Order: sequence, then C-alpha cells, then structure tokens
Amino acid sequence: MSELIEALRRGEGLAAWRQIADALEGEIAAGQLAQGAQLPTEAALAVRFAVNRHTVRRALAALAERGLVRASQGRGTFVEVPPLAYPIGRRTRFSEIVTGAGREPWGDLISQSEGAASPEVAAMLAVPEGAPLLELVTVHRADGVPLSTARTWLPLPRFAGFAGAYETSGSITRALAACGVPDYTRLSTRIRARMAEPAEAVRLDLTPGRAVIVVSSVNVDGEGLPVQANRAVFAADRVELVVGS
Amino acid sequence: MSELIEALRRGEGLAAWRQIADALEGEIAAGQLAQGAQLPTEAALAVRFAVNRHTVRRALAALAERGLVRASQGRGTFVEVPPLAYPIGRRTRFSEIVTGAGREPWGDLISQSEGAASPEVAAMLAVPEGAPLLELVTVHRADGVPLSTARTWLPLPRFAGFAGAYETSGSITRALAACGVPDYTRLSTRIRARMAEPAEAVRLDLTPGRAVIVVSSVNVDGEGLPVQANRAVFAADRVELVVGS
Repeated sequence: MSELIEALRRGEGLAAWRQIADALEGEIAAGQLAQGAQLPTEAALAVRFAVNRHTVRRALAALAERGLVRASQGRGTFVEVPPLAYPIGRRTRFSEIVTGAGREPWGDLISQSEGAASPEVAAMLAVPEGAPLLELVTVHRADGVPLSTARTWLPLPRFAGFAGAYETSGSITRALAACGVPDYTRLSTRIRARMAEPAEAVRLDLTPGRAVIVVSSVNVDGEGLPVQANRAVFAADRVELVVGS
Repeated sequence: MSELIEALRRGEGLAAWRQIADALEGEIAAGQLAQGAQLPTEAALAVRFAVNRHTVRRALAALAERGLVRASQGRGTFVEVPPLAYPIGRRTRFSEIVTGAGREPWGDLISQSEGAASPEVAAMLAVPEGAPLLELVTVHRADGVPLSTARTWLPLPRFAGFAGAYETSGSITRALAACGVPDYTRLSTRIRARMAEPAEAVRLDLTPGRAVIVVSSVNVDGEGLPVQANRAVFAADRVELVVGS
C-alpha cells in the first residue's frame, strides 16, 4: 500500500495506470529491473500496487508502446535490451555479431519450400526468372530474444542440402560451408523501414504498430556468384545498423 | 454517377469510402494518377463519386495510411513517388544523389542556434563535452517533396559562417566549401527506425503513425577531423538506403 501512496503523491491527478507505468519506467532506468529481466506477473503487480489487473495491463501496454518492455506471448513481459550494434559490410555475420556483443546467437528454421524465382529474387541471384529455388523462413535470436525474421532464397540444385545443415547448426555460415561454400561476402544491402505486419509482430514478440527495418541483401561466393538472397525484417527497437567505423 | 455505380458493382458489400479508395488505388497503379501528381480536391472527388466530403476524406486517409498518397497541409493530396535509392558510403552527397535520380534537390534552413555539446554529440565530433557548437535544423527536399529533416552540429568558431552559406546555397557541400572545407567524407553511419513523432510528421508531410529511418552520421575533412555530426530523420516511404553495389 505504501508504494501506491507514494506513487499517488508523485503523480497527483494522474491515472493509476500512468503512475504505475511511471514507477516501472523509473525502476527500468535505475536498473532495479535489469535489461532482459522478466517483470513480475500481472497478478503480483496488481497486489503490489493495490489495483486490479486491468489497470496493470494498461500500464504494461503503455510501456510496450514506448518500446521499454516486450510482451512475449504465453511467457510474460520482459524489459527490452539496448539495441544491438549490427555492422553492415562485406563480412556481415549474424553469429559473430551477436557473440561479439556477449549474447548467444541462434537461428530457428520456421519453414522450407521449393519454388520458382520471382522477377525480384531472380535479379538478386542473377538466375532466370522461374529458376528453381529453395526458400527458407527463419527467426534469428540473441539470448532467446528475436532480433529478426527472414526469407532466404538459394539456387537449386546447388543448395539442396542447405535446410538440413541450417536446422542442425542454427548458422547460415555453417550451413553454407556444409554446401561447399567455405566463405562468402555481402554484395549489396538495401534498407527500408515500415510498421510491422501482424504476422511479423507475433514472430518478433513486437507490440502491434512498432517499426521494423527491412534489410534486403545478396551474398556471393569466392567467385562472385550469388549464393543467397535475403529479406530480413528486424525489430527496430532491438538493433542499430552500423555502416563504416 | 456512372463511376459510383461501376464502383458499387465491383465492390458489392463494401463501404463507399473503401470502394473510392480502391478506385483511386487502381488509377495510381495504372499511372492514370501519375507519381507525384496532385489528386483532385475533396470537393471534386465528392462530386465525381456522388458522395459527401467526409466519405472522400476517409478514402484519402486510408490511402495515406498505406503510404500511397501524401497529404501536404494546406496544399492538397499527392501521389507518393517511388522510394529514392540513397547510397550510404564514404562520399554520400544529398544533392548529387537527388540530382542523379533526375529530381531537384533543395535544403531549407528551419532554424539555427548556438549551444554546448551534449555528451553524445561531443563524442561524435571528438570535442569536449560542453564545447561551443552551431546547431541547424534543416529539411531536405526532392522536387519539393520532403525526404528528411535533420539536426546538424558543427564546431564553433570554425563554422561560424556555415548557416549563412547554407541558406544561400541550400547545399551542405557548398556551405562547407565556403567555410574552407573543399572536400569531406563520411566517417560513420548508424541507422535506426521508429514511428514519426508528431512534429516530424508535420515537417515531412507524413500521416501520423508512418515509420521514419533515423540516420546518425559524422563527416570528416581531408585531415580526418570531424566537421559535422548529423541526425537525419527520413520519411521511410520515400527512401531506400543502399550499402555496397
């Protein structure tokens, strides 16, 4: 009860949900609620602030709208981590970048299918329109938190074994190596931004209406031959792309 | 009247505003409403579709929310142009990029002030915290359409004459040359994205809720000394950043 009284004093005339949001924001800023930490349950927060759960839910929604917390379906609410500096260059490697930031990288294979190259993807991979391609949908995580979800296209039959190798290793780099591409470099990167689509928001644990960065890229092998076209959708709150030093 | 009847036929069971939005979208896709062209006034569209202006306004709002048109306060509604490919590299030059795309570049000086370097900007410019800086707020346009609004910081007293030179020339490159910096290169670029803030939305003719790309960069002179720190906010619908080929 004393916490609510304290909050009421600080925020005279403010709605209870706003005061609770302010109190939690202060604890996040002060590090009492650490980056990445799970918040107490709605029930526990309702007891602590002596309010009903509806009021708690509104406070948490306000924090999520500002990108301070992330609601993960069925698992609870977590403090957002600071954005990961993500270098874009000739040797962009998701696993190395995440590991270098002291976080644990992983890639989940969501689906794989075979199909014909669309005009756009055919141009990226320098193959004829309609050429056979492997298409993967993946989610890339750092310490379990989704950073991006991507569609990746690779020419067939050259990369017929890619999906299996990716599923085992969780790494594009290792899966390409398993397909006889020991090294690759980034040929080009194109960057756009927009609001998250509903399916992306679910996959990235994003509050609807948050922004995403869409990164389209082409990787080439040692001979300069395109091996992979990607369209990655990053949670904009969790990443800062870095070009140059 | 025949148009409305035709629209009703095509969209049975759809609200009138949705049918009007669909009809206008079709005309944009077909090029009957050209990129960059001004749409007829609300009054003219109301007559054409035989509906009231409220219904027209709702249709235009739906198109704006999808980034197909841009409402410019006090001037009318315009078809959005396709995104400008904007290379990010050592020699990034707004004027050259826009000219190269066949559009007319211009930069408006919104405000100028002198102040003390914040910790963040001091680090970008390699000056002591609190060092005197010139701060400019600018809007960058292509064919009159706002692409970005930026805050730019330059060390004082070295760049005391910059604002006047910028106002005259509308070009960062020419204003730096007037201050004795004949050439400069981009040291670093950091890219984030989020929703437009209300003041940015007004300045960029953006519908509230559209995404912006935030590009923080540092330019250095021939000796490698930072001359300029920038934080540019791009209308995400109007630009695609390109890194590499």
